Amino acid sequence: MSRIYNFSAGPAVLPVECLEQARDEMLDYNGSGMSVMEMSHRGKVYSAIHEEAKANIRKLMKLTDDYEVIFVQGGASLQFAMIPMNFLGKDAVADYVCSGNWGAQAIKQARLIGQVNVAADCEKDIPTRMPRPEELNWTKGAAYAHITSNETISGAQFKVFPKTEAPLIADMSSDILSRPFDIKDFAMIYGGAQKNLGPAGMALVVIRKDLAERGNKALPTMLKYSTFVEKDSLYNTPPCYSIYMLMLTTRWLLKFGLENMWRQNVEKAAKLYKAIDASEFYRGTALPEFRSDMNVTFRLPTEELEAQFCAEATKVGLSGLKGHRSVGGLRASIYNAFPVEGVDALVDFMAEFEKRFG
Amino acid sequence: MSRIYNFSAGPAVLPVECLEQARDEMLDYNGSGMSVMEMSHRGKVYSAIHEEAKANIRKLMKLTDDYEVIFVQGGASLQFAMIPMNFLGKDAVADYVCSGNWGAQAIKQARLIGQVNVAADCEKDIPTRMPRPEELNWTKGAAYAHITSNETISGAQFKVFPKTEAPLIADMSSDILSRPFDIKDFAMIYGGAQKNLGPAGMALVVIRKDLAERGNKALPTMLKYSTFVEKDSLYNTPPCYSIYMLMLTTRWLLKFGLENMWRQNVEKAAKLYKAIDASEFYRGTALPEFRSDMNVTFRLPTEELEAQFCAEATKVGLSGLKGHRSVGGLRASIYNAFPVEGVDALVDFMAEFEKRFG
Repeated sequence: MSRIYNFSAGPAVLPVECLEQARDEMLDYNGSGMSVMEMSHRGKVYSAIHEEAKANIRKLMKLTDDYEVIFVQGGASLQFAMIPMNFLGKDAVADYVCSGNWGAQAIKQARLIGQVNVAADCEKDIPTRMPRPEELNWTKGAAYAHITSNETISGAQFKVFPKTEAPLIADMSSDILSRPFDIKDFAMIYGGAQKNLGPAGMALVVIRKDLAERGNKALPTMLKYSTFVEKDSLYNTPPCYSIYMLMLTTRWLLKFGLENMWRQNVEKAAKLYKAIDASEFYRGTALPEFRSDMNVTFRLPTEELEAQFCAEATKVGLSGLKGHRSVGGLRASIYNAFPVEGVDALVDFMAEFEKRFG
Repeated sequence: MSRIYNFSAGPAVLPVECLEQARDEMLDYNGSGMSVMEMSHRGKVYSAIHEEAKANIRKLMKLTDDYEVIFVQGGASLQFAMIPMNFLGKDAVADYVCSGNWGAQAIKQARLIGQVNVAADCEKDIPTRMPRPEELNWTKGAAYAHITSNETISGAQFKVFPKTEAPLIADMSSDILSRPFDIKDFAMIYGGAQKNLGPAGMALVVIRKDLAERGNKALPTMLKYSTFVEKDSLYNTPPCYSIYMLMLTTRWLLKFGLENMWRQNVEKAAKLYKAIDASEFYRGTALPEFRSDMNVTFRLPTEELEAQFCAEATKVGLSGLKGHRSVGGLRASIYNAFPVEGVDALVDFMAEFEKRFG
């Protein structure tokens, strides 16, 4: 068996020790005689997993009692719909920041439900970036404001979160738990699990209870946040195995420390940006002040060279570097579990490739 | 490591050889250097898994080209909402059979969306049962008709499916792929994965394409069946690992043969019903003609004896026999992957327990 360096944007690399534990426990979890996949979600063995997963998130995010941790199937894409379905009433307006592809997707779904004000739009800007505070036009009395903390495709990231009067909701799919943040600034944050948390198939949602309670009560049970809060994400059978993997990755993160992880993430990204900036051959696509620490996007002089770069990198075990099909170029996604050695290997490969083709 | 006999109603026992393969491939799937949890859902390696999962279902259900296999997150509970959201228009009526707890749950969600006619109601009947053909009052011109093929909690199962003029939709969560059936009788069938297909966190949906296309076009993208049909369940990141496990369990089932599996399921259930009927001590709760081959429900003379039965059974490795909290009693769930030897062990235990307390 030989593991590659997996730069995939998501689903993405997971901590090896979590995968090893999942492997070792596959047929018999903790002496229960069952796989985690096989056990009742209402039994004691699974309950302990469910509770630890929530407790780990509470510790990592320093949550106060007014917030609840819930697990919702459907990924961030279903959240794009559930948020306006729950909180965007008939005569209300919601503020959305369009900072890239994911911000635009959230807006598209909200417009199917109600009225949207685009507080800032820098989706098409090149170099890619986030809006600056003075560019944000918030609506007085908006139902809520929505931002995307990190644009996975363009590689731009909010370094400081805006302050809003309306309840602030953030899609943190691609940088959740990559750095500390103050939950008090948000009424709700959410993220698809498949970057920093575990396998695809679930969104982690942290929601202030009073917001959940204010949601549209006429919705189907499975589309109301209040159902998940009141029933502890156990109204129906939850995605138990995904929650188990999230429990393992958050346990691993607690051991490492979130501050340490943040420092390591910044250092990993800095190595790549340094290699890009030191060269005329490579060119970063995001404005330096908004460069993502999770998704490092860059270009080569031609598309042919980009294709060759990808193909040769894959051959030496550096996989998943092709940029998103909508923008092209290259992208190195280096989430929490991506090893430092993999970044070093890419830096070396970049230098070697430039020597040959630069 | 010692595996128990796991009679859990769902999540439920999975084939040991599938779990072993998942274990062995956890850190490196098929020489890719990645776990299935870590790989891009748009890459070639995952695509082959996705395609085989669908192809296996097509073979097992003998699907014609007018049906599509899709994977939707949220389990059967979200399907209860998506069905009326998609197909129950403002002035339309949908027929629902209320055959137990799950039929009632489906009705509850449909009533939040539109007008429901209960074509038959035997939810509260004791002994539990399914409606007979002459009891079914279908609405002329109904948008669709909905049935539950097997009531997991009460242990009643349709042995012959009703014929309807309206498109027939069946929740097959707890007996999907336990027996052959003719897809031509249905416009759509669905099932939560966590009984016969894999881990919890997904519903398998087989839908006739013309029905999917007729769905409400104003819905959010993630709530339209047409999205999943048009985008091959890859509009957003699918629950890749759940689909991988479904691929393994359906591959296992193809090898065994669906007709063989059906025969084995009938024989497993018959052994338990025979043990129940041969005794004055045990009493089946479902009318014999509707007895489920998946969930064998029975009672003992007193609740105290039922509790003691469960406790002692658990000690000897027969786990998960407690009936659903809403009805009490005992329930042996014996899905496809539940081994024949486990049924024999329960029959022996029942005889031994009766000798002591009967």
